[in-house]
Amino acid sequence: MATGKINVSVENIFPLIKKFLYSDHEIFLRELISNATDATLKLKHLTSIGEAKVEYGNPIIEVKVDKDQKRIHIIDQGIGMTEDEVKKYINEVAFSGAEEFLDKYKDAGKEAGIIGHFGLGFYSAFMVAEKVEIITKSFKDEPAVHWICDGSPEFTLESADKKERGTEIILHVADDSTEFLEDSKIRGLLVKYNKFMPIPIKFGTKKETLPKPEGAKEDEPAPTQEVDNIINNPEPAWTKQPTDLKDEDYKSFYRELYPMQFEEPLFHIHLNVDYPFNLTGILYFPKLSNDLNIQKDRIQLYQNQVFVTDNVEGIVPEFLTMLRGVIDSPDIPLNVSRSYLQADGAVKKISSYITRKVADKLSSLFKNNREDFEQKWNDIKVVIEYGMLTEEKFFEKAEKFALFPTVDGSYHTFEELEAKIKDTQTDKDGTLVVLYASDKEAQHSYIEAAKTKGYEVLLMDSPIVPHLLQKLETSKEKVSFVRVDADHIDNLIKKEDTAISKLSDEEKDQLKTSLENAIADKGYTIQLEAMDSTASPFIITEPEFMRRMKEMQRTGGGGMFGMGNMPDMYNLIVNTNHELVGEILNTKTDKKRERLINQSLDLARLSKGLLKGEELTKFIARSYEMIK
Amino acid sequence: MATGKINVSVENIFPLIKKFLYSDHEIFLRELISNATDATLKLKHLTSIGEAKVEYGNPIIEVKVDKDQKRIHIIDQGIGMTEDEVKKYINEVAFSGAEEFLDKYKDAGKEAGIIGHFGLGFYSAFMVAEKVEIITKSFKDEPAVHWICDGSPEFTLESADKKERGTEIILHVADDSTEFLEDSKIRGLLVKYNKFMPIPIKFGTKKETLPKPEGAKEDEPAPTQEVDNIINNPEPAWTKQPTDLKDEDYKSFYRELYPMQFEEPLFHIHLNVDYPFNLTGILYFPKLSNDLNIQKDRIQLYQNQVFVTDNVEGIVPEFLTMLRGVIDSPDIPLNVSRSYLQADGAVKKISSYITRKVADKLSSLFKNNREDFEQKWNDIKVVIEYGMLTEEKFFEKAEKFALFPTVDGSYHTFEELEAKIKDTQTDKDGTLVVLYASDKEAQHSYIEAAKTKGYEVLLMDSPIVPHLLQKLETSKEKVSFVRVDADHIDNLIKKEDTAISKLSDEEKDQLKTSLENAIADKGYTIQLEAMDSTASPFIITEPEFMRRMKEMQRTGGGGMFGMGNMPDMYNLIVNTNHELVGEILNTKTDKKRERLINQSLDLARLSKGLLKGEELTKFIARSYEMIK
Repeated sequence: MATGKINVSVENIFPLIKKFLYSDHEIFLRELISNATDATLKLKHLTSIGEAKVEYGNPIIEVKVDKDQKRIHIIDQGIGMTEDEVKKYINEVAFSGAEEFLDKYKDAGKEAGIIGHFGLGFYSAFMVAEKVEIITKSFKDEPAVHWICDGSPEFTLESADKKERGTEIILHVADDSTEFLEDSKIRGLLVKYNKFMPIPIKFGTKKETLPKPEGAKEDEPAPTQEVDNIINNPEPAWTKQPTDLKDEDYKSFYRELYPMQFEEPLFHIHLNVDYPFNLTGILYFPKLSNDLNIQKDRIQLYQNQVFVTDNVEGIVPEFLTMLRGVIDSPDIPLNVSRSYLQADGAVKKISSYITRKVADKLSSLFKNNREDFEQKWNDIKVVIEYGMLTEEKFFEKAEKFALFPTVDGSYHTFEELEAKIKDTQTDKDGTLVVLYASDKEAQHSYIEAAKTKGYEVLLMDSPIVPHLLQKLETSKEKVSFVRVDADHIDNLIKKEDTAISKLSDEEKDQLKTSLENAIADKGYTIQLEAMDSTASPFIITEPEFMRRMKEMQRTGGGGMFGMGNMPDMYNLIVNTNHELVGEILNTKTDKKRERLINQSLDLARLSKGLLKGEELTKFIARSYEMIK
Repeated sequence: MATGKINVSVENIFPLIKKFLYSDHEIFLRELISNATDATLKLKHLTSIGEAKVEYGNPIIEVKVDKDQKRIHIIDQGIGMTEDEVKKYINEVAFSGAEEFLDKYKDAGKEAGIIGHFGLGFYSAFMVAEKVEIITKSFKDEPAVHWICDGSPEFTLESADKKERGTEIILHVADDSTEFLEDSKIRGLLVKYNKFMPIPIKFGTKKETLPKPEGAKEDEPAPTQEVDNIINNPEPAWTKQPTDLKDEDYKSFYRELYPMQFEEPLFHIHLNVDYPFNLTGILYFPKLSNDLNIQKDRIQLYQNQVFVTDNVEGIVPEFLTMLRGVIDSPDIPLNVSRSYLQADGAVKKISSYITRKVADKLSSLFKNNREDFEQKWNDIKVVIEYGMLTEEKFFEKAEKFALFPTVDGSYHTFEELEAKIKDTQTDKDGTLVVLYASDKEAQHSYIEAAKTKGYEVLLMDSPIVPHLLQKLETSKEKVSFVRVDADHIDNLIKKEDTAISKLSDEEKDQLKTSLENAIADKGYTIQLEAMDSTASPFIITEPEFMRRMKEMQRTGGGGMFGMGNMPDMYNLIVNTNHELVGEILNTKTDKKRERLINQSLDLARLSKGLLKGEELTKFIARSYEMIK
């Protein structure tokens, strides 16, 4: 038996890094600026604990593009490196300097906000550069050094005459990466990845207008001066304490995050936890429409103020991906698959922490200013209803603040609604029947019929309502939801008292025969009902169960398999106590009777939105004739 | 000045591989089976050219899971490795064996279908295993060797007594990866990644029913035998020549790809090119609805029969992501960002090749069986129309086969349509006016009015139609599209002859005043028009330009900024030659006249789908009264 040591073939490591390390070449800039930030924060920490006897000052990081020479410079004023440190941190690939530093200064280091894994991040420079130089001077009293490497494993190292503390990285951009020599490209990347990093980043200069000197002439232009153009906000709102922030600060941070959004957010949730995981952030509820699809990819994920991604799927529960804002956590594993994320324990905890915080915020908004909460309901309900459907924990909490609006614009929690309608809307079997409409306009006549009886009608118009009602029905005892057009109103909430029909059984048989003869071919199930004489003579209804199952199928999931394709089923309710129905019965000529029946059926279909196309055109032509 | 060689710190290479190499741990199985396939195909190649003097036979790859011992075995009957080869290919990380092999056997190797980058793929085993063993025997007459490594850079190497040619990899699964010891998990991965790999893969056994022996009793069960359970189809349809495949073969391959799809594809396109890039595949046109959103992620991307991803965004043009099927190409760079893909020259060529093939197929379907093509039109139009809108090259080709269906169900190319309607539908300024409807039912009365004039009305109901029409209008000379309800029919296609009004100018003024008094508050622009006496008395129209801009805004992009939120604008056209309008003019009592006007307006609104909610309910109640 022989033993040996696996040899990593250095010749192949650069192509490897280039090909596999990051899927996106643009990442190099983020990595190099992370290193520069790192180096600056390390210095800050060492000066604060007295280990570095130098002035920390107000260090910045500068990025310069030299298009002619095809170079990008990244210059920091941080800790710098001695010759030994260059040998250790740069010449040994995959040796993480930050890791060692963290080991040494443990918790203190964490607070100081150390970001990176130096070794690897640095080598991402070779994704875009054919040659890389480092000129660095340590805060320690040692000469500066100059390291040069052309992407082969060979490097040269010599002393340099750099006087100022810090590190300058010079990238000699390769021919296939010249896009990174465009100012606009670099500015775009800095804004994308480094907008909220903790050390000021300078990219070029800008003109600043100064106040006019006293006694200046009117037409004299105000003097200007060139100042550093700082592209980042080193202290974004989420890194501050909630107590230090006013409502206006949250709003202005929202505008900073989404400069193209003109609408203000409805409210925010400040996240701040450091045990058992580390997470800060601010979530915003924007105004939401009923469209569940296009509202993703808006929460931005950061790690120690470095932008990582705007796809937080798997990290926040799906229903909250409709929100906007920022989450910053060093505890979310990067570069792993979504399925892995979902199984990760820490991520699960983060996800349920966020869910809880959102529920708590909603709960306190509801308690502290109900009127305001009601006004916002239509803009936020889609999140809440979707959350109730998909997260059991959220469902339980939401019971306290989820609102059920009526068609008349009053809002109830389910408990309140129950108390209000218990007496009137409990049917003879003891089931509480909650009436709802999905469209105030389209179901107007049915809503009116319910209101005439003194019933409340909810307005439930989100696309996932059928699923939500299904869930509510199974989680509550003896509660049933029915849409107002599911049957005629006396049948929807059945009471003991049966209405008396004006017609004898014989007359009913005769009527039914007439109806069947006139409209046999139209596919309605005819139902004679003794209703109020003031109710409509003809009503078309659509049974709840079938309709709901079909809707659930359409909106994805649930319902019963294959039901989505079944034809719609309608009943024709004929009110035997209505005057017009009496007239139909008493009309002697078949033709006239049929005309009466068909015109009435057309009106009932019109009321249910079923009279369309050619039939509607004919109905209208007939009606013009009638009014002439 | 000193020079030196960068040292890759081996201690850190395993964590690195684990963390960065693949975002998905499950990839390990794909990589190991790719290696096994590789090894087998290499042997096949060497025997075929006479360099290996052994019998190739019918080699398979076997995967075994030993849950008790926490082991996964992957066993092939391929080329195997000698001790020297293990040292070279395994002990040197990032040394790609396949690359060297390819260099040596260049084009021959390509044909033989060599897949992998051996070195790296193998080390992905350490993503899930704490210890890995290799037992391998080369096809050359050398003793077998046994390599063991526990994930540190130390390994042991000794001789083994394996007799059969080939390699066995044994993974000792780590405690955080025990999910991979579940049969169902492994089966799932094999089906996902290896379903179409070229060497048969055995995973367990299954019972196979044998024919009953002659003279067996009726109630005697048929004999069974245990046979290898082969999970893959080593010769998927796309690897064969189109001439060797029948229509039924394509359909059955579709079912293999999408076992949960019950509907048959409409047709297929076999892709097959080897210069200037290598690509094979089969694309299917499924039945498509008008919903552009949910139809993505269905084309599967393979590399030499190894599944890579089902997200082909950036590789095929967006409009074709609605198709289904398989693309197999070794020339598509993996592990790179979408933005990089889109800029890549090879990918651009692939994308335009696919576009061209799809256009050619559509063109030939149209030419060879137009009737069939027309029948399929509604199921495929959304792809074609979207392609015309987004790919200029496709637009040019599609001119020949894109169909414009009329409301009566006849189909024309634009050229045919033009020839047909040129005489009747060219207006007095020489512009060809193409009439269309977006909804046969809702716009029925307007369609009828146009037909009465002898005009053709197209049915254009895809969501992107407004954008498409905009594009067609700008690409053609003197052609304009108007929806049938954009104005009254005599105004839509203006001819020289002006209709004569029955009313005097004085009467017109009087009528206009009456109308304005009665409906001043309803926001219609009133327009008196002398039309046929048989046309409707009142017509509501919606000007084309405004409506189209608003629709374009709604369906994303185009239109004019901010227009999406503007209120709808309607005109009320009153036909001065209609009997009812004369009656309105001659009615003396204000109340009766207003009633006539309002009932007529309600009927016009009904015809345009604008009478809703309370107004509709009242209209219906009034109508019941009238028929009593």
